[in-house]
Amino acid sequence: MAHSATTATNPNPSAMSDRCLNITSLEAKDIRWPTSLGAHGSDAMHTDPDYSCVYVTIHTAEGMQGYGLTFTLGRGTDIVLMAVNAMKRFVENRTTASIYQNFAKFWREITSESQLRWIGPEKGVTHLAVAAIINALWDLWAKIRGVPVWRLLTDMEPEELVSTIDFRYITDAITPKEAIALLRENKTICNDRIQDIVEGGYPAYTTQVGWLGYSDELIRSLCKKYLRAGFTAFKIKVGQDLENDIKQIGWSNRLMVDANQIWDVNTAIEWMEKLKEFQLLWIEEPTSPDDVLGHKKIAEALRKYNIGVATGEMCCNRVLFKQFLQENALEFCQIDSARIGGVNEILSVYLMAKKFGVKVCPHAGGVGLCEMVQHLQMWDYTSVSCTKQDRMVEFVDQQHEQFLHPAIINENACYVAPTAPGYSTELKQEAVAMFEYPIGTEWQRMFAEGIFKSV
Amino acid sequence: MAHSATTATNPNPSAMSDRCLNITSLEAKDIRWPTSLGAHGSDAMHTDPDYSCVYVTIHTAEGMQGYGLTFTLGRGTDIVLMAVNAMKRFVENRTTASIYQNFAKFWREITSESQLRWIGPEKGVTHLAVAAIINALWDLWAKIRGVPVWRLLTDMEPEELVSTIDFRYITDAITPKEAIALLRENKTICNDRIQDIVEGGYPAYTTQVGWLGYSDELIRSLCKKYLRAGFTAFKIKVGQDLENDIKQIGWSNRLMVDANQIWDVNTAIEWMEKLKEFQLLWIEEPTSPDDVLGHKKIAEALRKYNIGVATGEMCCNRVLFKQFLQENALEFCQIDSARIGGVNEILSVYLMAKKFGVKVCPHAGGVGLCEMVQHLQMWDYTSVSCTKQDRMVEFVDQQHEQFLHPAIINENACYVAPTAPGYSTELKQEAVAMFEYPIGTEWQRMFAEGIFKSV
Repeated sequence: MAHSATTATNPNPSAMSDRCLNITSLEAKDIRWPTSLGAHGSDAMHTDPDYSCVYVTIHTAEGMQGYGLTFTLGRGTDIVLMAVNAMKRFVENRTTASIYQNFAKFWREITSESQLRWIGPEKGVTHLAVAAIINALWDLWAKIRGVPVWRLLTDMEPEELVSTIDFRYITDAITPKEAIALLRENKTICNDRIQDIVEGGYPAYTTQVGWLGYSDELIRSLCKKYLRAGFTAFKIKVGQDLENDIKQIGWSNRLMVDANQIWDVNTAIEWMEKLKEFQLLWIEEPTSPDDVLGHKKIAEALRKYNIGVATGEMCCNRVLFKQFLQENALEFCQIDSARIGGVNEILSVYLMAKKFGVKVCPHAGGVGLCEMVQHLQMWDYTSVSCTKQDRMVEFVDQQHEQFLHPAIINENACYVAPTAPGYSTELKQEAVAMFEYPIGTEWQRMFAEGIFKSV
Repeated sequence: MAHSATTATNPNPSAMSDRCLNITSLEAKDIRWPTSLGAHGSDAMHTDPDYSCVYVTIHTAEGMQGYGLTFTLGRGTDIVLMAVNAMKRFVENRTTASIYQNFAKFWREITSESQLRWIGPEKGVTHLAVAAIINALWDLWAKIRGVPVWRLLTDMEPEELVSTIDFRYITDAITPKEAIALLRENKTICNDRIQDIVEGGYPAYTTQVGWLGYSDELIRSLCKKYLRAGFTAFKIKVGQDLENDIKQIGWSNRLMVDANQIWDVNTAIEWMEKLKEFQLLWIEEPTSPDDVLGHKKIAEALRKYNIGVATGEMCCNRVLFKQFLQENALEFCQIDSARIGGVNEILSVYLMAKKFGVKVCPHAGGVGLCEMVQHLQMWDYTSVSCTKQDRMVEFVDQQHEQFLHPAIINENACYVAPTAPGYSTELKQEAVAMFEYPIGTEWQRMFAEGIFKSV
């Protein structure tokens, strides 16, 4: 008698012509960088982050590998690692075809494990673990097709792309049919936009000038550096001296502020009213990431000052995003590539954002996040919103050198379109050797020198 | 410049006269019972649960112990255990006074750890871990004062009780001042209600007749058993034969159904419209536990049939509960004692429910949940809602024999008021020896006999 209307059972005929690989194993590692030593990434809630990730490698018998990761802040990476290992069995010893030919069904299996889902469901540790695995599977799929993920998504027929999404719990906001129609409509002059992306890239803004733990002097020199590099949009943490920041950045450029969840609803409104003279584009994470109605109240109060509300990096799944979008509780939707359940679920958020007329400006302050979200946002331009108007991708200059195909910013402060097949998620081997926690050579050195306490 | 309006800094003067103990260590264990063998606890989403818990013991130098737990379904218990161990350092080697004299501040410390919060925040694995620890601290506090938790709460002055709550993110719904006033108002004839509870207990309903994996024959015999035991309210899983159930239970008794999140919003409404003839008291978890607005839509559609919407056992924190209550999206608020951050956070949900006029009927289908929620609901009667009208506590007849002070149901199908000091959370030593996973004697036996695959 009991049924779900959204059981994902549409097979994907296009995937049937893909080369089929045999997955032999899934390997997961705890990788941490000691960023707390320089206060990089510090904010009101996260005062001492050590930028980290759970790094997943999917090995195939044929020798091709898929790499994926989820971002963490140091402590707790081992907990997410354990959750990844608990989900390994969904991937190991099966063929890639058995996954990609019905990717939504696979996604539901891994997110709905009958005992594990109790400790989620679809949120926190278990969903971060899902993200790392799913992202690795998209890296592998793009490699099988020999294209970067943004092209994989762009080149898919709408039916194929939509077949990867599990619509459970969101059909009251968008149906598969609506999603297909929306993508179909944009297919026609897609090639012009692809060319535009390849030639000009995609606009970025930077948060690098504004971590809370940075000295005024460091902020001044960073502002100069990024202005010279062509950036025209900057984000800083609330709690800093705005007068001083504006002086550095100039009134003609864009300024956003980030509260990182420190306020209650009414406090957020009061504080932002005091900052109205600064012509801020948005206030990011003014309160709890779970508070749809709170954000709505804040957004309504700040609309008259032209200050938008932005949130999403800690929004735990598509069901929360659905409500933020349905309620017009945010103006900038900041999807994160590794908090909700990987590409499949993120696609559904982009499609809902398009339907509800909300701009997506992805979060990318973390390890590998710039590398991933550039793909998603380029697809948004070629195939979903089809505009760059008031949209940009965060850029933070950290850990890029650890990746084999790092995100690159051009002379106009735009992300350069990735060309290497995959999701840009592969770490250099020496990075893994140095920063795997706690056994990597750099950690062993820092323990020996007393810079960190050994575990 | 950046501040929270709700920093918890009110010390608790009453706690200063408590005996102060020295906490030496926090010990956590993974305990699992093989309930999947009998399909106990099975539902549409959780087809094969092995009722389990992370079991926390807080040891003091003085020899008194605090016991707490969080409920899990088997796989994943080890992940929550790891999270508990990551939080140990907040408790070990400190005095009980340093915790209880500013319990809200302690609660914020443990829920806002600067690196760990990224993998929550305040939800899923990390919040389940917080629950186990916080519940153990309440067990210990009640023992220090020599009373059961329901009396500890009832006997507290409103100021003291409210000082244990972190109001961050909920001040737009309720302020400490309002909470104190609300409790103060009910203090006057509290003694009559205490006497009433001691003499008559608190009403229960049972879910034991309706697990999805049970045979029709088993359900029939269970209905007879519980009717004889005085029960007049029964809950079954959707997907069962309602005609048959009604025949067993009788139209004069109350029937509730539980969908365990299987439906999308519109599907839930369509299905429940088909069941309107059965005079159901509530539909529980009709859709995603995160979907406030979805529940609101369902509640509005079903109001004309007098079917209430119930949810809460998977509601991840006070911020979600706040929205459910503000939006009138549920008629029955089913708090769980081990999913949100333990007693401190649950108190805030009871107080908000009172303010918004919503009935609390706690969830208790799981290990130790009946034992804990009876305390909370008895306090609700003595001090918050001050009525039993349309309120009852779930009763599931499982694992009670594993506890030193199990929940007891009297001849009128009411929970008997606990008298032993503490939170009724202490497991028998032999239960731990038998069911600790995977080293307990019962698990070793089942592995040897091939009933479960060894790990």
